[in-house]
Amino acid sequence: MDFSHSARSRDLLDRLDRFMREAVIPAEPLYASQLAGGADHRQWRQPPIMETLKEQARAAGLWNLFLPPGEHGPGLSNVDYAPLAERMGHSFIAPEVFNCNAPDSGNMEVLAQYGSPAQQAQWLTPLLDGTIRSAFCMTEPDVASSDATNMRATATLDGDAVVLNGRKWWSTGIGHPHCRVLIFMGLTDPHAPPHARHSMVLCPLDAPGVRIERMLPVFHAYDEPSGHGEVSFDHVRVPASNVILGLGRGFEIAQGRLGPGRIHHCMRAIGAAERALALLCRRAGERVAFGQPLAKLGGNGDLIANARMAIEQARLLTLKAAWTLDTQGAKAALSLISQIKVAVPNVLQQVADAAIQIHGGAGLSDDFPLAALYAYARVLRLADGPDEVHRAVVAKLELKAQQGVDAR
Amino acid sequence: MDFSHSARSRDLLDRLDRFMREAVIPAEPLYASQLAGGADHRQWRQPPIMETLKEQARAAGLWNLFLPPGEHGPGLSNVDYAPLAERMGHSFIAPEVFNCNAPDSGNMEVLAQYGSPAQQAQWLTPLLDGTIRSAFCMTEPDVASSDATNMRATATLDGDAVVLNGRKWWSTGIGHPHCRVLIFMGLTDPHAPPHARHSMVLCPLDAPGVRIERMLPVFHAYDEPSGHGEVSFDHVRVPASNVILGLGRGFEIAQGRLGPGRIHHCMRAIGAAERALALLCRRAGERVAFGQPLAKLGGNGDLIANARMAIEQARLLTLKAAWTLDTQGAKAALSLISQIKVAVPNVLQQVADAAIQIHGGAGLSDDFPLAALYAYARVLRLADGPDEVHRAVVAKLELKAQQGVDAR
Amino acid sequence: MDFSHSARSRDLLDRLDRFMREAVIPAEPLYASQLAGGADHRQWRQPPIMETLKEQARAAGLWNLFLPPGEHGPGLSNVDYAPLAERMGHSFIAPEVFNCNAPDSGNMEVLAQYGSPAQQAQWLTPLLDGTIRSAFCMTEPDVASSDATNMRATATLDGDAVVLNGRKWWSTGIGHPHCRVLIFMGLTDPHAPPHARHSMVLCPLDAPGVRIERMLPVFHAYDEPSGHGEVSFDHVRVPASNVILGLGRGFEIAQGRLGPGRIHHCMRAIGAAERALALLCRRAGERVAFGQPLAKLGGNGDLIANARMAIEQARLLTLKAAWTLDTQGAKAALSLISQIKVAVPNVLQQVADAAIQIHGGAGLSDDFPLAALYAYARVLRLADGPDEVHRAVVAKLELKAQQGVDAR
Amino acid sequence: MDFSHSARSRDLLDRLDRFMREAVIPAEPLYASQLAGGADHRQWRQPPIMETLKEQARAAGLWNLFLPPGEHGPGLSNVDYAPLAERMGHSFIAPEVFNCNAPDSGNMEVLAQYGSPAQQAQWLTPLLDGTIRSAFCMTEPDVASSDATNMRATATLDGDAVVLNGRKWWSTGIGHPHCRVLIFMGLTDPHAPPHARHSMVLCPLDAPGVRIERMLPVFHAYDEPSGHGEVSFDHVRVPASNVILGLGRGFEIAQGRLGPGRIHHCMRAIGAAERALALLCRRAGERVAFGQPLAKLGGNGDLIANARMAIEQARLLTLKAAWTLDTQGAKAALSLISQIKVAVPNVLQQVADAAIQIHGGAGLSDDFPLAALYAYARVLRLADGPDEVHRAVVAKLELKAQQGVDAR
Repeated sequence: MDFSHSARSRDLLDRLDRFMREAVIPAEPLYASQLAGGADHRQWRQPPIMETLKEQARAAGLWNLFLPPGEHGPGLSNVDYAPLAERMGHSFIAPEVFNCNAPDSGNMEVLAQYGSPAQQAQWLTPLLDGTIRSAFCMTEPDVASSDATNMRATATLDGDAVVLNGRKWWSTGIGHPHCRVLIFMGLTDPHAPPHARHSMVLCPLDAPGVRIERMLPVFHAYDEPSGHGEVSFDHVRVPASNVILGLGRGFEIAQGRLGPGRIHHCMRAIGAAERALALLCRRAGERVAFGQPLAKLGGNGDLIANARMAIEQARLLTLKAAWTLDTQGAKAALSLISQIKVAVPNVLQQVADAAIQIHGGAGLSDDFPLAALYAYARVLRLADGPDEVHRAVVAKLELKAQQGVDAR
Repeated sequence: MDFSHSARSRDLLDRLDRFMREAVIPAEPLYASQLAGGADHRQWRQPPIMETLKEQARAAGLWNLFLPPGEHGPGLSNVDYAPLAERMGHSFIAPEVFNCNAPDSGNMEVLAQYGSPAQQAQWLTPLLDGTIRSAFCMTEPDVASSDATNMRATATLDGDAVVLNGRKWWSTGIGHPHCRVLIFMGLTDPHAPPHARHSMVLCPLDAPGVRIERMLPVFHAYDEPSGHGEVSFDHVRVPASNVILGLGRGFEIAQGRLGPGRIHHCMRAIGAAERALALLCRRAGERVAFGQPLAKLGGNGDLIANARMAIEQARLLTLKAAWTLDTQGAKAALSLISQIKVAVPNVLQQVADAAIQIHGGAGLSDDFPLAALYAYARVLRLADGPDEVHRAVVAKLELKAQQGVDAR
Repeated sequence: MDFSHSARSRDLLDRLDRFMREAVIPAEPLYASQLAGGADHRQWRQPPIMETLKEQARAAGLWNLFLPPGEHGPGLSNVDYAPLAERMGHSFIAPEVFNCNAPDSGNMEVLAQYGSPAQQAQWLTPLLDGTIRSAFCMTEPDVASSDATNMRATATLDGDAVVLNGRKWWSTGIGHPHCRVLIFMGLTDPHAPPHARHSMVLCPLDAPGVRIERMLPVFHAYDEPSGHGEVSFDHVRVPASNVILGLGRGFEIAQGRLGPGRIHHCMRAIGAAERALALLCRRAGERVAFGQPLAKLGGNGDLIANARMAIEQARLLTLKAAWTLDTQGAKAALSLISQIKVAVPNVLQQVADAAIQIHGGAGLSDDFPLAALYAYARVLRLADGPDEVHRAVVAKLELKAQQGVDAR
Repeated sequence: MDFSHSARSRDLLDRLDRFMREAVIPAEPLYASQLAGGADHRQWRQPPIMETLKEQARAAGLWNLFLPPGEHGPGLSNVDYAPLAERMGHSFIAPEVFNCNAPDSGNMEVLAQYGSPAQQAQWLTPLLDGTIRSAFCMTEPDVASSDATNMRATATLDGDAVVLNGRKWWSTGIGHPHCRVLIFMGLTDPHAPPHARHSMVLCPLDAPGVRIERMLPVFHAYDEPSGHGEVSFDHVRVPASNVILGLGRGFEIAQGRLGPGRIHHCMRAIGAAERALALLCRRAGERVAFGQPLAKLGGNGDLIANARMAIEQARLLTLKAAWTLDTQGAKAALSLISQIKVAVPNVLQQVADAAIQIHGGAGLSDDFPLAALYAYARVLRLADGPDEVHRAVVAKLELKAQQGVDAR
């Protein structure tokens, strides 16, 4: 048993850490000032500082770190990439700096693993270069998407084309000025077994019939310039060669995509929780009330201790999930990945809530990233399967695993 | 022991309830569409529908219901007003419709109880008429305001004037286009006993030296057209007759103001929690996943039961606090008022969080009032004393009360 | 709305309180010393001091206070009796002193309400006199008794006799040396509708075929001299006239019995929680660590405040349930009674746990009643329906109630 | 990063696991039947099956596994021993079978590390052989022992003797029929710096003046044949050579002793939690209510998932604490060891509580080990420093660690 990171991971972490401290964190205010906000995504623009940072990161060899071993990137294992994702999670702008942001990273993984050479040439290459952005269209407004088999939007074969119809929402990244392509998940064969009914199809954002109806706020924030869109598809025709892997294989791809994606999300959330705790501790040490720093008052020390304990445990669980995925495969990691999907966002919500409380009103304003961290946690408890669905998975696997156990 | 409301309270509640169902709730979308949002409060405007609703409410005899017995209003006791405040809490726009919104209601109470005839003529009358709005400037950005004696902004006597200096924030209502006056709490005599150092001073919003530096967002929302401002006071001179009650008597006024105000806040929050629970139940009954309505899945029934139990208990505690304040006075109600200030906002946060979870992504968007209800709860856990301060009050009073008890 | 007790209730409470302070609490050590413990109930005996206290209580007019209006007792409403039950809850020995202990009080209610004159003459009279004790046999070891329709033990008509067969456990009171009769709930007609299948039958403890197999410990305590028994019934024949109300009417009786019984249990548990809090506060004020009384260290003040808030709310909820039962009947009180059945035992568990923590090791020993209070809370979370079943009832009724609500 | 156990640890775990399944668990009922219980420890006896199992374990090479590298045992690191301790934690009788039970293991560590050759010859050798048992006397009834510097019992040098005076309690193991020696911690020099005032002194149990006043129950259980004693020391004279390491060095020894001891305790508690979860799952799968196995009803799946997530995280935290202690020493592991001391017992309490709830009344009886597991958890939240003290340590170290952090 060895809790230390590999030499390669440590080296990258050192360099990433320096880059974060010297380039990314100091650039946050400039980035914020270059943003154009509001509900109308057509007015959003990419802050120029982001492109500068991307160039620097690429030059520093800190690019596409998320990619598993293969021909396209450094090829880190999940457990080696995990601490890097955590460090990126300290800043909302960091993941894009390193071309490791969702949903692009997930889409690149899908294309790298399942894409045809033509699909890769057309979409994967510019994504890996960071010259375009992408979106992922799965959740639908009209059904409980916690049950993914509920999806009703259709992807129907019609000659050598596939026709997309329906409405999606929470399509993250679709508002980005650089967004050019989306992956659409739709129902192809309602009579097939439940997990063989849906297909994943590449669709250019400018295909006729694709319409961004509106951008959706999260606690009133639009998360520009990426955003979360509600998108309608009205008889959108794309070539049948845009289907990834094959018709009816959408869930098969989703399974392969979700494990690493959840680990990335969770590690970034751990980093976010560390940032919230650091802010909490600084404020609790500086502000004075009733003659004492807040840190010494009443149960505030417990807030700090509980946050530390929760973060440590959630990080270890996530690392173990990554290690299990690396060494024993997706099936062996199934329960652990659902466990972190529940545990980590809740830890981030707890720590962000505590940090807000210690900051008072300032914690709710945008003088600190705490309200945004809180909202991020709240989203994560729903995105990619709500807590309830993942708890049910954990319970089901546990009951199965316990069947052979001699419980006296 | 009698848990039924008085006949007078029931009659008003019936009429208010009808008005809410027929006029206020249906007007919410129009009100929203008439708002002008954003960070710049100078572009905010009062939605015309609000003035219409105010006229109707006044005509219906549902006006200034919050005022205690006296010459200015219907004169309801706290326990009789409580269910009305709860009903208003179902809608964010309702309190202003009935001229019962914070901070105006608190400011009117202060002026009615402590204001000089001249102060009442100048400010109380138009406030009671709903023709102007007001703000309350107490919290400061540079100190931990949970310890109110920390306040450093100054209100200094200079001849027949009082000079105000310093910086305040979270001055709610100051962005309203109709806001004309604010109550400023400032340090007058740093050498007096801690609770006799500060004064409350009436200050016109257009007095030279008053400057709204910016409006503060709460989870990215500016709560237009009222808003929460950061305000600087730079040698603002107002007549000494603008001092309320007398120099150094600010805390004395605050004590009288806070009890009823906290009860109003808490009852409105109970109403808000009821609305969240109603939305939760509707969604849980309608949406289907895994072949069942959400209400029947896993622990979702527990969410509902826990919400109902928490709301019932919090409401009863608030009603008891109101009854104790009415029948035994402020000192006897001290612990109960701190108890509700902790319990109720946490219940609202719990219920709003549960409702968001059941709504999925929709719960975070502005398609439902849930994110706003959640943010409201989060503010209430800080505003007017954070949970921590009120828990400390409860503990201190409990330990004192237990001293005479024979604990074997 | 009026939170004060009636004059009659206040008068009885004053007298009861004096009796508790002067007679009951001081007698606890003597009572404990007169007990004979262990797993073998045949060696248990009634502590003589109990009979002395019973005589005194009866002479003081503090006897059978639990009985609703009727011919047998003082006839208090539930809401008037509630504070008396709470006060009794401060001491484990108090309820029996006042002839108000479970399960005798519930059995007396059943006999008073549903018993035939002959049943009343034979069993109710000596129970009201406190000369005999009784037990209630419902829960079974072989089925999940949380679903009461699971009960499999049989009560079969055979000529002019009813024959009882099966095994019951957690039959509280059956170990008492004075126990003479039990109420047996058994399956009579498996083909009737689920709630018309079972009957309640009076059975003398010495009837041939009744056998106490063993007494069951709760956290290793046997709760002598009452105890909780596992009892087998092997072809036990009793006269058909021992059936209460009629064959198949067991659930009908149970419904009438449970509401008041749950209120009594909950009010006693509130009293128990008050005792735990009083002990907690005393210890926290007296013991010194790190140079301060425990009450001033870290989050200990929060423990106290949280306990006070939880107790206040749980008490108000219970009083409201009692008032609703009194004024609007059992059906209207259904949800509230399930609510208190969940809320109150959990509050007692929380407060007892906190009190143990403040007492350190002493809290786990029998130097204080805290471990016993904790165990009592833990039992109450299961007895008479586990938390889970009552939460499900609350959720179901809530969803039904919300159906007519306009949830916008 | 590598979450797999070392080959040596895995081999021992396989053998231990087999021994547990084949010998220890099946012997539990016999062990229970051979116990003689009650409050009077003079009637307790060692169940003969325990001596048989000890012989078998020793023969199987599963003996003194807890000992760190050195001359006396197999010399496992903490992280290698951890899974073995966890496995032993499945059964209350297992630790003694392998001579790894508290407090003997801790006392052996002290003697192995700090004892003189004469002390080792006299006491360590028979302890390593399992022929005698020992106790540890630190906690005192008259002071808040959470602050260890409060200890008032004295160990005073008088010529070539040390004289012990005072009263100790919660001296675990002192009731064991084989107990021959205890380690006494007493105040030697009240004028020395706080952590140099106390000494550890070896004292034979039969030394004149040592008197076991009574055995203390935990939730009414005496934990025979080891027990927890209240012990008075009345001018007990032992040779000055019985002082361990030197006068005033008690805290120095305690620090060295506590880290590994807390890891052992926590890993055993993890094993206990696994047993509770296994029982919970079996019962939830077997019992049927409302037409479904309990596992499928309402929030019961959440109970299971939450238990699994909590156990996984607590285990990983404990393993990391062990690894940090092994690789970076006691000071680096300080926060982690306090973290596990809080986290793990609370997890066990949570899981045992859930398992009791699923078992209904049976869970509170002694038909299952759940009530005992629950009591064990409750003790662990107090023993060896209450939660509150360890949270304070974590908070203090966190604030210190954060001082150098750039928290923007």
